[in-house]
Amino acid sequence: MKIGFIGLGKMGLGIAGHLLAGGHELHVWNRSAPPARELGERGARVARTPVELADAEFIMTMLANDEAVRAVLLDQGLLEAARPGCIHINLATVSIALTRELAQLHAQRRIGYVAAPVFGRPDVAAAGKLNVVAAAERQTLERARAALEAVGQKVWLVGEQPEKASAVKIAGNFMIAAAIETMGEAVALTRSHGVGADEFLQVMTNTLFAAPVYKGYGSMISEQRYEPAGFPAPLALKDIRLALAAADERNVPLPFASVLRDGLLEIIATGGAHKDWSALAALAARRGGLDGH
Amino acid sequence: MKIGFIGLGKMGLGIAGHLLAGGHELHVWNRSAPPARELGERGARVARTPVELADAEFIMTMLANDEAVRAVLLDQGLLEAARPGCIHINLATVSIALTRELAQLHAQRRIGYVAAPVFGRPDVAAAGKLNVVAAAERQTLERARAALEAVGQKVWLVGEQPEKASAVKIAGNFMIAAAIETMGEAVALTRSHGVGADEFLQVMTNTLFAAPVYKGYGSMISEQRYEPAGFPAPLALKDIRLALAAADERNVPLPFASVLRDGLLEIIATGGAHKDWSALAALAARRGGLDGH
Amino acid sequence: MKIGFIGLGKMGLGIAGHLLAGGHELHVWNRSAPPARELGERGARVARTPVELADAEFIMTMLANDEAVRAVLLDQGLLEAARPGCIHINLATVSIALTRELAQLHAQRRIGYVAAPVFGRPDVAAAGKLNVVAAAERQTLERARAALEAVGQKVWLVGEQPEKASAVKIAGNFMIAAAIETMGEAVALTRSHGVGADEFLQVMTNTLFAAPVYKGYGSMISEQRYEPAGFPAPLALKDIRLALAAADERNVPLPFASVLRDGLLEIIATGGAHKDWSALAALAARRGGLDGH
Amino acid sequence: MKIGFIGLGKMGLGIAGHLLAGGHELHVWNRSAPPARELGERGARVARTPVELADAEFIMTMLANDEAVRAVLLDQGLLEAARPGCIHINLATVSIALTRELAQLHAQRRIGYVAAPVFGRPDVAAAGKLNVVAAAERQTLERARAALEAVGQKVWLVGEQPEKASAVKIAGNFMIAAAIETMGEAVALTRSHGVGADEFLQVMTNTLFAAPVYKGYGSMISEQRYEPAGFPAPLALKDIRLALAAADERNVPLPFASVLRDGLLEIIATGGAHKDWSALAALAARRGGLDGH
Repeated sequence: MKIGFIGLGKMGLGIAGHLLAGGHELHVWNRSAPPARELGERGARVARTPVELADAEFIMTMLANDEAVRAVLLDQGLLEAARPGCIHINLATVSIALTRELAQLHAQRRIGYVAAPVFGRPDVAAAGKLNVVAAAERQTLERARAALEAVGQKVWLVGEQPEKASAVKIAGNFMIAAAIETMGEAVALTRSHGVGADEFLQVMTNTLFAAPVYKGYGSMISEQRYEPAGFPAPLALKDIRLALAAADERNVPLPFASVLRDGLLEIIATGGAHKDWSALAALAARRGGLDGH
Repeated sequence: MKIGFIGLGKMGLGIAGHLLAGGHELHVWNRSAPPARELGERGARVARTPVELADAEFIMTMLANDEAVRAVLLDQGLLEAARPGCIHINLATVSIALTRELAQLHAQRRIGYVAAPVFGRPDVAAAGKLNVVAAAERQTLERARAALEAVGQKVWLVGEQPEKASAVKIAGNFMIAAAIETMGEAVALTRSHGVGADEFLQVMTNTLFAAPVYKGYGSMISEQRYEPAGFPAPLALKDIRLALAAADERNVPLPFASVLRDGLLEIIATGGAHKDWSALAALAARRGGLDGH
Repeated sequence: MKIGFIGLGKMGLGIAGHLLAGGHELHVWNRSAPPARELGERGARVARTPVELADAEFIMTMLANDEAVRAVLLDQGLLEAARPGCIHINLATVSIALTRELAQLHAQRRIGYVAAPVFGRPDVAAAGKLNVVAAAERQTLERARAALEAVGQKVWLVGEQPEKASAVKIAGNFMIAAAIETMGEAVALTRSHGVGADEFLQVMTNTLFAAPVYKGYGSMISEQRYEPAGFPAPLALKDIRLALAAADERNVPLPFASVLRDGLLEIIATGGAHKDWSALAALAARRGGLDGH
Repeated sequence: MKIGFIGLGKMGLGIAGHLLAGGHELHVWNRSAPPARELGERGARVARTPVELADAEFIMTMLANDEAVRAVLLDQGLLEAARPGCIHINLATVSIALTRELAQLHAQRRIGYVAAPVFGRPDVAAAGKLNVVAAAERQTLERARAALEAVGQKVWLVGEQPEKASAVKIAGNFMIAAAIETMGEAVALTRSHGVGADEFLQVMTNTLFAAPVYKGYGSMISEQRYEPAGFPAPLALKDIRLALAAADERNVPLPFASVLRDGLLEIIATGGAHKDWSALAALAARRGGLDGH
């Protein structure tokens, strides 16, 4: 299966590497050259422009945000150049508004569009263990199935409108941020009464909260290990904004999301833009005067 | 081991039944007679007053709130009557202030005090699968160990000051309420974009959030099954108030807890006092106009 | 002074009428014909397209939102047609981002741009009693001074960058919304203890809070008079969004604004889109179960 | 009129001095001697114990909090010693629960009880310009009228149940705190876009918000003058807690009050317990990274 792959940040690199290892023919492009060269050495063909990938059967993109998607697809002409019948699989978290717009633009040009955002960190991506949440018109989805399954360990189909996959992914990221804030506040509370973060979180993450999100972020919080960032605060803020915008469009209040937004803004405003989003827990402690001030 | 057991609400009944089944000599008292009679038929000795239990080796209490504990221990004279050397194991969630006060009163009378709140619902209690969080002075804890292990599947020791166990339990209940609110908001968001609650929660609770709390409350939310209440909103409000009071005492802000408090107050104020605390999710949907208004 | 005036909603009509009464030569255009006809009967010249106003000395616009401004100025070509040297006075509340963009576009075409949002309701506008907050490059401002003074009772100059006037106006509207919510919560609290809204607000608005905002909205809250709307909830939501966006751009958290956003969303989601923003007080009462549910 | 006056903190001293200047016979007691001595030099009779004031026609108290009121009235026996027919006028802000309890205890002993909390700062008190909010059983109120009028410039009667006056005062203090937070957030927003605090607040406090609260606290915010504290953060936190408790008792959510509570806790937790409650504005700026971090 010939796949054009665009966007070789940490996540994109992990996924593309896994696809290469699976024996797929991979043509890659990235705004900066080094990651593309790295994949080239592992067997990928390196394109000089996005448009060179226009004749692939599948075009996968893993771009940072709405603006980057617009730049590559629209401004640099990839969508216009793509051959009818090919399928664009967008693996990134983008806004619901853009998803809806892209679905329409692709349909007009008879190009399939699959919204397929993924859950998992770069190491999970490289190991092929991502969870892929996919939504697309039925026939497109059937044709894209094998490609989607090549990306991760499980594909969750959530409907025919691509925006549904975006909604699920956006709501999922909100849930992770809320779990972090929840642990942060709970740890601030127990620490203020003399119970260590690890002591408390061991109880919780081995019983009622024995889930990957709580175990993973729980250990970062216990160790106050917020750097280097796996997922930096500004990206998390972007996702919380997407959640608020998606809810706003339907007049749905999200009080927890507003608290998260304010917390992430404060982290960034006070010098923590390089920190992981789990630094929300550091903020909860600081507000309570627990780590000096 | 001779155990005096006071407080046969749903939770108390489950625990006491499990102890009986384990072959322990159980003397029980309850404010209303029927649950005591039920246990009597299963082999427990039924006392007419709390004071009759004063000569037990262990006195376990599972009372609804601070007031009920005061009533039995102080007003009805159990603490005064208890023989020096016996150990009081308090299985309920009470305030940190009361825990501190009780620890002192027990010490003055040379009676051991173990704060040992439990995580789990009545059916879990009856099956002996509770998680017990315990804190007490070291020697007391050693002597109480077997009794604690008879109560649940695992005992988590969190220190020598009883209030530490209270802090852990209070923070844990806050975490559960926050998980419910989080799912409620996330489901309101995805539903507003056409993704069903079950469809969304299946993805989340089988991947990053594959934990008992999310699976259990997630299915209640999917099915909009908020009655009959496993844990009614007013009890949840009591626990969130305990969290806010515990944090307040140490000047620790808890923004999520404040949102939860407001939500539970609204549920109760608008006719939902009989509903389970998972009705926080119904409130999130109602605020977004999703289920009529 | 020849003035082109665009946008004859309630506010625009009030201002334009006052200018006419002041003897100014007024050329008007509005998307829908009736308000323009009404002014025509009072002496204004009615234009058929915005571009017909392109040769006025001053072009004043009072349009509903960013989109309407873009439509008239850019899509319908008014900016392109305007004669160099004329001055555009934007009386409406628009986003900071658009203000910045317009300032640049006008400068490129050598047209003056004054951001001059106003505080006051339609009746205040008609009486010439508005407060005008203005910012523009110094020379432009000097030339526009008389025109600005013709609009209201006082002109507040807040700097040379037009966005500063937008920031002041946006922050001011946030303050009004916060004052309404504050009264709403305070009244819910006192009512729940048997003190009538009017009884309470009489004390406050005649002493520490003896200000127009509190007196005006206070009487609406006392009388539960939320319809017909002077300023409907969706417009208020638009302004709170502008505040959040302006703050977001600079990483400034606004916790009160987030509460207001959630409240306005809920009002709109639950059938109150036609109500005045002071219905935030009705929501506060409803949440506390005070007016049935 | 013979008045016993207890509690000579800044506010009490101001009021007592004004009563003395008005020619009333004043017997005073205070926990610490110096303020009592000061008044003694101005003509007051200084008592050695509260009970010495028991035969006064009116006993006025201005004590710091619920605990201080209990200490003087109950523990030190003033209530028991007071002669039937005398009237106790409580000028301080105390909880609704205590107000209700005191009303009952006084009634049992045939002593009149007037809840008469006041609005105004010490200098206002000394000038006799306070606003007095009073509630008491009708006959008591009639008899107390002259004494109340001697205290301030205006007496606002709000009903027969003393707790109504407490509710009004508590809700009023919440409104002041909310006004401070509102200005703090608005100023953070405008400052982040280059508009100075003073420049912005001049516009607002001379137009829509031309009220004493906004002018007074507005100038403190403009000048970042949070010390010495007129009303320190811990006292403000006490009052916000009273508001939350009063609302909680009736199941009324107060989202703004929760934000204020969290902010005041943070100020205190991070070294600002000595600052004025207007330091909420400094916190809003700090969260947005405006004053270093």
